[in-house]
Amino acid sequence: MEVQQTRLRNDVETNGEFGAVGVDDGHGRTVLTGTEADRRARRYFVERLEDAELDVRIDAVGNVVGRWTPDSADPEAAPVAAGSHLDSVPEGGIFDGPLGVYAALEAVRAMQDAEQDADFEPTRPVEVVSFTEEEGQRFGGGLVGSAVAAGDMSVEEALAIEDDGESLHEALESIGFLGDGRLDASEWDAWFELHIEQAERLERATVPAGVVTTITGLSRCHVEIQGEANHAGATSMDERTDALAAASEFVGDVERAANEVVASDAESAVATVGKLDVTPNAPNVIAGKVELTIDVRDVSHDAIHRLIDRAHASLQRLETDRGVETTIEHPWDRAPVPMSERCRDALHESGASAGIETLNLHSGAAHDTMHVAEATDAALLFAPSRDGISHNPMEWTDWANCAAATQVLAGAMARLASR
Amino acid sequence: MEVQQTRLRNDVETNGEFGAVGVDDGHGRTVLTGTEADRRARRYFVERLEDAELDVRIDAVGNVVGRWTPDSADPEAAPVAAGSHLDSVPEGGIFDGPLGVYAALEAVRAMQDAEQDADFEPTRPVEVVSFTEEEGQRFGGGLVGSAVAAGDMSVEEALAIEDDGESLHEALESIGFLGDGRLDASEWDAWFELHIEQAERLERATVPAGVVTTITGLSRCHVEIQGEANHAGATSMDERTDALAAASEFVGDVERAANEVVASDAESAVATVGKLDVTPNAPNVIAGKVELTIDVRDVSHDAIHRLIDRAHASLQRLETDRGVETTIEHPWDRAPVPMSERCRDALHESGASAGIETLNLHSGAAHDTMHVAEATDAALLFAPSRDGISHNPMEWTDWANCAAATQVLAGAMARLASR
Repeated sequence: MEVQQTRLRNDVETNGEFGAVGVDDGHGRTVLTGTEADRRARRYFVERLEDAELDVRIDAVGNVVGRWTPDSADPEAAPVAAGSHLDSVPEGGIFDGPLGVYAALEAVRAMQDAEQDADFEPTRPVEVVSFTEEEGQRFGGGLVGSAVAAGDMSVEEALAIEDDGESLHEALESIGFLGDGRLDASEWDAWFELHIEQAERLERATVPAGVVTTITGLSRCHVEIQGEANHAGATSMDERTDALAAASEFVGDVERAANEVVASDAESAVATVGKLDVTPNAPNVIAGKVELTIDVRDVSHDAIHRLIDRAHASLQRLETDRGVETTIEHPWDRAPVPMSERCRDALHESGASAGIETLNLHSGAAHDTMHVAEATDAALLFAPSRDGISHNPMEWTDWANCAAATQVLAGAMARLASR
Repeated sequence: MEVQQTRLRNDVETNGEFGAVGVDDGHGRTVLTGTEADRRARRYFVERLEDAELDVRIDAVGNVVGRWTPDSADPEAAPVAAGSHLDSVPEGGIFDGPLGVYAALEAVRAMQDAEQDADFEPTRPVEVVSFTEEEGQRFGGGLVGSAVAAGDMSVEEALAIEDDGESLHEALESIGFLGDGRLDASEWDAWFELHIEQAERLERATVPAGVVTTITGLSRCHVEIQGEANHAGATSMDERTDALAAASEFVGDVERAANEVVASDAESAVATVGKLDVTPNAPNVIAGKVELTIDVRDVSHDAIHRLIDRAHASLQRLETDRGVETTIEHPWDRAPVPMSERCRDALHESGASAGIETLNLHSGAAHDTMHVAEATDAALLFAPSRDGISHNPMEWTDWANCAAATQVLAGAMARLASR
């Protein structure tokens, strides 16, 4: 059973044209849920599923599924499923998400080829999936489609999420991807997701496939720091309540706390202030208000909570020292998620049998597999990212590595689909 | 000769309706050059000038002038002029600018009343002025109309300034305020501007009128800090080049440098980062780029330059310590401007004769008078700002203080107009 690099590459490159962003170097794309770029990416995916003679269905939150029921399989058996997502961050790369979607499809095509050559007799159906709104750029905090599939969020709740006055329901309807029913991950025998690593461990180890042991937990906070907008020239230094000066100290505190926690006992911990908005944001006005987000992750839930506690303490100190008023909301806290041993073993075995080296690592990024793992046995496989760069047009994975990781994926899916 | 508080208040309150912003407390307005709110504010001003039988002209950059030529005056004599501006920052207050414009008009009306009662025999014409684009929110860095009037900027240069694809020429044309000729400040015998203090010195001293000795110099820098946009979860703390973490350190350095310079020898020095924009500004992406402005002011040009040097040094350190790339542009550097002794004396004498206390102070804010002082004898008078608040809907000056400061202004204008 062999995956075809050119077939995979053609799909990922074609998909990269939807929402393409003009950049000097690399390949950028902006595919936000419910936009024209999203509609085109989804249409192309449906066509490719149909080309491979898969039965396509769209669920009530826009998750797209293609199902292959081999002649040798029991159509009632719990399927083996794989996939990822097609949406992107603004000016993201072409691999984050689409590689996993089209690798799953290529794995099915490789299994179909092997079945025709009578090399392979599957006993279970196989499904290829693209989840809605993984990146959380428009509707909610991300991983929306997989949350619904895992039963973590209701269809109604998901469809009601709004972006700038438009609901997810309206957005999906407008691009013709509001289906019905609910894709139910608990009906799967097993789940696999191939994704780019978005870090440098595989590249440094020159290994084309990494088997994730644990997906880090993730906490997101919204912070508001209220100072006093005032004239930048007429207000002496000692009369100011500068929200941006306070927020800058806070950003430094968050970074320092993360570095200290990393140095002490939680080497995989990270904390990021990635979004920060100043009001009124004028050169000659002292900032009256700053709103910002903190994103904290680690394989240890305790380390995450210690970092959130440090953020609270920093804000209290700033209230005392600078007279600002602060609020912190904590809408999102997910525990770390260990991956299924059975699925991980299948991946390592697949690599060994194909002569492709694999190694164990953790995932610092949240992935749809985090939700799916609540509903069924699930595993996450990484392909190397050049220089670790992601969420950026310079994101890159060599096509040979894409194919090797897809080969590992296909072998593991075939193993579980034929047991 | 007596100014009328109700007449003045009516004008300032009516003007405050143009571009009014709904706020819970205070009175907010957004009057940006070339907008509908600007058109309405200008139209009302022209009507009020005409009501007082002043000859109105609009110059080529939209400066509005009303001229009173008393019967007793030599129409060829160099006029005494006064005024300020009608534009505002976004969500600014109702006094910053309009108080000086309508105080100048009220001063003329008080002089007209006194002339009718034969209490006053002016020998010079008197002009009331509103300058275009003082705040620099849309077209250039501010003080545009007065820069042209002072001969510091050509009419062509001013009209070519663009905001988001629209030139000042087009903006003024669209609101019907593209006139002709150039208001020439060097033709004035003397100039006065009443403005709110935007600081707390007068309020603390409970004095209604402050005579400015020097307007501080002002430097503006544009800084760009380039890091590397990357996944917030998958990029370990030691692999990051976080542009926002670097920018936050920079904001702290700017504030610290200003506090140290204030503590050592330049107590009026201020430095502000008021505008800061993050790219891509997403919760789960490490900031790839931050752009920000620094605004530095003091009565000592040397102190300003030391603060700019500190900003350069901070950026160099950040390049070394954090691997970011930085650029700093320095498009604007104005020396401190001393006020005319003759005009200041007239203000103090006017206060003394009306029984209104005055004191000396410096101006930390730039004002149109900075430019006018290059062309003729000029002075700047402050009225108290409650809690020093400005550029904010909570900006407030008690009407009694507005009237008292206007009385001081009127007396000084009358003195110089009748010598």
